[in-house]
Amino acid sequence: MADPHFVAVDWGTTSFRLWVMDEDANILATTSGPYGMSRLKPNEYDHALEDSLRKLNVARDIPVIISGMAGAAQGWCEAPYLSAPTQLDDLGAGAVKVAGASRDVRILPGVKQSSPANVMRGEETQIAGLLREQPDFDGIACLPGTHTKWVRINNRAINAFETCMTGEQFAFFSATSVLSHSMADGGWDENAFETAVRLAINDPLSVPRRLFAIRAEMLVAQQSSAQARATLSGLLIGQELMSVPHYWQGQHVTLIGAAALCDPYFKALGLAGGAASIVDVTAMTLAGIAAVHQQGLHANA
Amino acid sequence: MADPHFVAVDWGTTSFRLWVMDEDANILATTSGPYGMSRLKPNEYDHALEDSLRKLNVARDIPVIISGMAGAAQGWCEAPYLSAPTQLDDLGAGAVKVAGASRDVRILPGVKQSSPANVMRGEETQIAGLLREQPDFDGIACLPGTHTKWVRINNRAINAFETCMTGEQFAFFSATSVLSHSMADGGWDENAFETAVRLAINDPLSVPRRLFAIRAEMLVAQQSSAQARATLSGLLIGQELMSVPHYWQGQHVTLIGAAALCDPYFKALGLAGGAASIVDVTAMTLAGIAAVHQQGLHANA
Repeated sequence: MADPHFVAVDWGTTSFRLWVMDEDANILATTSGPYGMSRLKPNEYDHALEDSLRKLNVARDIPVIISGMAGAAQGWCEAPYLSAPTQLDDLGAGAVKVAGASRDVRILPGVKQSSPANVMRGEETQIAGLLREQPDFDGIACLPGTHTKWVRINNRAINAFETCMTGEQFAFFSATSVLSHSMADGGWDENAFETAVRLAINDPLSVPRRLFAIRAEMLVAQQSSAQARATLSGLLIGQELMSVPHYWQGQHVTLIGAAALCDPYFKALGLAGGAASIVDVTAMTLAGIAAVHQQGLHANA
Repeated sequence: MADPHFVAVDWGTTSFRLWVMDEDANILATTSGPYGMSRLKPNEYDHALEDSLRKLNVARDIPVIISGMAGAAQGWCEAPYLSAPTQLDDLGAGAVKVAGASRDVRILPGVKQSSPANVMRGEETQIAGLLREQPDFDGIACLPGTHTKWVRINNRAINAFETCMTGEQFAFFSATSVLSHSMADGGWDENAFETAVRLAINDPLSVPRRLFAIRAEMLVAQQSSAQARATLSGLLIGQELMSVPHYWQGQHVTLIGAAALCDPYFKALGLAGGAASIVDVTAMTLAGIAAVHQQGLHANA
């Protein structure tokens, strides 16, 4: 491999993704696996990491910078939260060097907020990447996911943020709850999604009583799996939007996430009269870690 | 056993409860088990029922009347829904006699509603019981459970109803979601519950963004398992109340359910300025089945 310079890792609750980078932050090699925090004991991280690096022939003198849940209290090595409002240029200074690791390994901190209480781990790195790519960015980022984050960014700092558990709720309702019987065949009906978003935006208080109707519509009428699934998504995203209007009304929202997640948020924001654009989440993660690497890894950071 | 006259069964998704009754609808014997619809194939119901009756020495000429999910399409024998609005005095006439059963077995119908789409199975029997005990009942019943039902009853008929999946959501959030880590020790904090109900009633749109804060409050501040769990319950029930105000504002609500379920609804309704009373759910189930028995079981009902 041509001149690897550092390794970037996104180590989440359920997944592990690794990129070997050159000096200019180009990707030289990449790998991934299902061994996230929820499947590892603290003493198993080093082996999992070195095993991946051995397969890619990455020498021991190449440092690793990790973002995500590996830095949680129940992860590999706790990287204490920075407190919002917090400058993202400080992210590297808040990194923790993992004692006893087989090489130089740094874990980036998450960000906490006291009131209202909130935490993030991983998204701060993506926002640091956004600020590397768009140095003058000032406004709102939304990071759809298991726990969607809405973040207000001013003066290169995370100023405030909110979290909605929409992704985790969608997974529960669609795969486990009684509604799952009505969407077992998967699919997606765009008209049903739009109708549901509009219903939720116009009458958000009705959403709790509209959820079970997704099941009933199949029992007493004809409703396809695709309609049911898209209706569920539309109701939950519409309800989320009406819970955080101060994060999008009259503002431009930059969505950072996988296309499959950003797409329904983009459409829902449009239906609600909001404006949005989408940027690639992997690019932002790598840009955030590259920014930290560029600032230099101090001996005992 | 002194003169058994009929057997009443509440056969739900996860549980089976059986009572042997005398002519005056007094309980002579009872049994229960975890073999609900979700664990039985259609051809296993007869054996499960007869096994229970054998242990209680109930002779083959004693008829059985079943309420609940055993009558669903995926249950023992489908008992087609009655359509709301529907007189509850018709419940027995809508019963299905199970072909091939080892004795006279009748399964009571559920009730469906076309618009908004909705279904119930089991609750209609409890409401028939309420009407047996309170023949002039006219107004609102709320049946808290996995899927809480709000039912408008007029002229001895189910006129309209709504369903909220609050119980299923509470189970998901408290036992499976990321919030479960913050309430692993169980417990209940009454002040936290009341605070959460008030928050949800005064600002119901905020509930989606307040749920994750239950987790964050433990990570960035001090919050007990009891506070977290009661806060979750208060937010969800408060949100439900604001979704169905037309079922309780300015009206008296009769709660039918287990005490542990009715209690938080009773308190939440009080905090919201509503009025409620609680009646025992087992008594209502038995009264509903007794009413059907009293009306007579026709040969091919």
